[in-house]
Amino acid sequence: MSILVVGSVALDSVETPFGSVKEALGGSATYFSISASYFAPVNLVARVGEDFPNDYTAILKRHGIDIRGLEVAKGQTFQWKGKYGYDLDDPETIYTHLNVFENFSPKIPVEYKRSDVVFLANIDPELQSYILRQVDKPRLVACDTMNYWIESKRQKLQELLKNIDIFIINESEVRELTQESNLLKAGRAALRLGPKKVIIKKGGNGVLSFSKNCAFSAPAYLLESILDPTGAGDTFAGGFIGYLRKSGRFTSDTEIRRAIIYGTIMASYTVEDFSIKKLDSISYSEIQKRYHDYNRLTRY
Amino acid sequence: MSILVVGSVALDSVETPFGSVKEALGGSATYFSISASYFAPVNLVARVGEDFPNDYTAILKRHGIDIRGLEVAKGQTFQWKGKYGYDLDDPETIYTHLNVFENFSPKIPVEYKRSDVVFLANIDPELQSYILRQVDKPRLVACDTMNYWIESKRQKLQELLKNIDIFIINESEVRELTQESNLLKAGRAALRLGPKKVIIKKGGNGVLSFSKNCAFSAPAYLLESILDPTGAGDTFAGGFIGYLRKSGRFTSDTEIRRAIIYGTIMASYTVEDFSIKKLDSISYSEIQKRYHDYNRLTRY
Repeated sequence: MSILVVGSVALDSVETPFGSVKEALGGSATYFSISASYFAPVNLVARVGEDFPNDYTAILKRHGIDIRGLEVAKGQTFQWKGKYGYDLDDPETIYTHLNVFENFSPKIPVEYKRSDVVFLANIDPELQSYILRQVDKPRLVACDTMNYWIESKRQKLQELLKNIDIFIINESEVRELTQESNLLKAGRAALRLGPKKVIIKKGGNGVLSFSKNCAFSAPAYLLESILDPTGAGDTFAGGFIGYLRKSGRFTSDTEIRRAIIYGTIMASYTVEDFSIKKLDSISYSEIQKRYHDYNRLTRY
Repeated sequence: MSILVVGSVALDSVETPFGSVKEALGGSATYFSISASYFAPVNLVARVGEDFPNDYTAILKRHGIDIRGLEVAKGQTFQWKGKYGYDLDDPETIYTHLNVFENFSPKIPVEYKRSDVVFLANIDPELQSYILRQVDKPRLVACDTMNYWIESKRQKLQELLKNIDIFIINESEVRELTQESNLLKAGRAALRLGPKKVIIKKGGNGVLSFSKNCAFSAPAYLLESILDPTGAGDTFAGGFIGYLRKSGRFTSDTEIRRAIIYGTIMASYTVEDFSIKKLDSISYSEIQKRYHDYNRLTRY
């Protein structure tokens, strides 16, 4: 069985103090799909414009990602440009051109409808709910969101969260959503909105996960060089969901913890280079090796 | 055998958004001593003024801390006042009155000279070296420092570090000392200054530790309520050194990792209340329970 992901496929221009790229392959669904593809088959739903380079389509195909749901629409591909400072924290957005993504309201291809795991990447929560209604009884549904939707569509987001198993969100977003600055309180407050599990991404400070009866804290993998954090959160989600899909034990606390570590490992590759350069070029045995290195880094 | 600690015993006035205290028991050697006292005997060297309350001396005694090295000098006790914002990060210093601490240049009592573990809390690195010369062949020497000494006495600090086994420092300090913003690089650069092990404190984001061939990353304990972070770093050092002294296996990587977790657990008590209120009132079995809770929080 496959993972269905719906999100953006974009052309990203990024500047950091360590370099820059122009119109590189980006977007939440891109990072998620490539990351998850190391573990399980992925069905991608997104929309690009006629300008979307064949080379980029080829990258997705090479990872075995099913792109029958990648619609090519009249017009231009979603473009984002961001600039990071030395702390590589919140980037300044130079521009966001939604282009063909503006009226994105996807019909899920018939072939995808029986995907048993669904990841709703960061898009309008109304659209996330609309997509979810099109899928036949998925066994596991996860989603992400962002401050923009928390501020502009809180009600719709809260309706969506009632139907979500795993809510993946970053620390500033969960604080804004729950109005709690303490992350333990924020995690518990987010659980009360409906999801069975809340995973809080803390960037270079690792990940926290909460469910009704337990909490898990995992530090980040240690890296000597970080060039560009763009896509780290979606790559985390891809590794996390990918591992869980591969394991098939969606409610095992042990497997969920391991999945969080695999998500962490996958994100560590993304930040080591711009766009998907590093993520695109690794092997499954390298991932396994880094997982073992992570064990050595954290076991006591 | 005992732990010798040299540092400050002070009267702290602290304001946070969650409350305040006036002239409460504080100082690096205070937090260190009380924390370490849960694990091993502590010999304290510090200097207070005639105004130092008997109640505070009684607290130190109650923890079995040997205070023959706590000199009462003519004049007033070291006073510090700080104010924290909502993030409970770097406090604004309202005042620092060194008072009797100004010309502190301690002779180590004869009874203390055979302490086999020495912790040189954050004081002038020249003084740290001076103290170290007075101790007979200690088996383990650890020290802390601060930005002020990195800026004003870098040379003397670097001389000291050649004689240090374990260097405990916070993340902004190690970045300043090594001129490396990446913590993996900074940790390795700090190792090249002489210490066999470098432990980097990241506050609410946990601890990193580096030695020649290995790195260890431990997240913080999760707390629902943090009132005042003052003293957390020294409390960490006290739990860390205390556990190591109790274990006696100073070079075992396994024991050093466990010691880091005990340091983390001890620091979690300090931040839960102002001054030493919480740290003062716990039991060894509570510490053990929190250690097990930490296992549940981090194992995978």
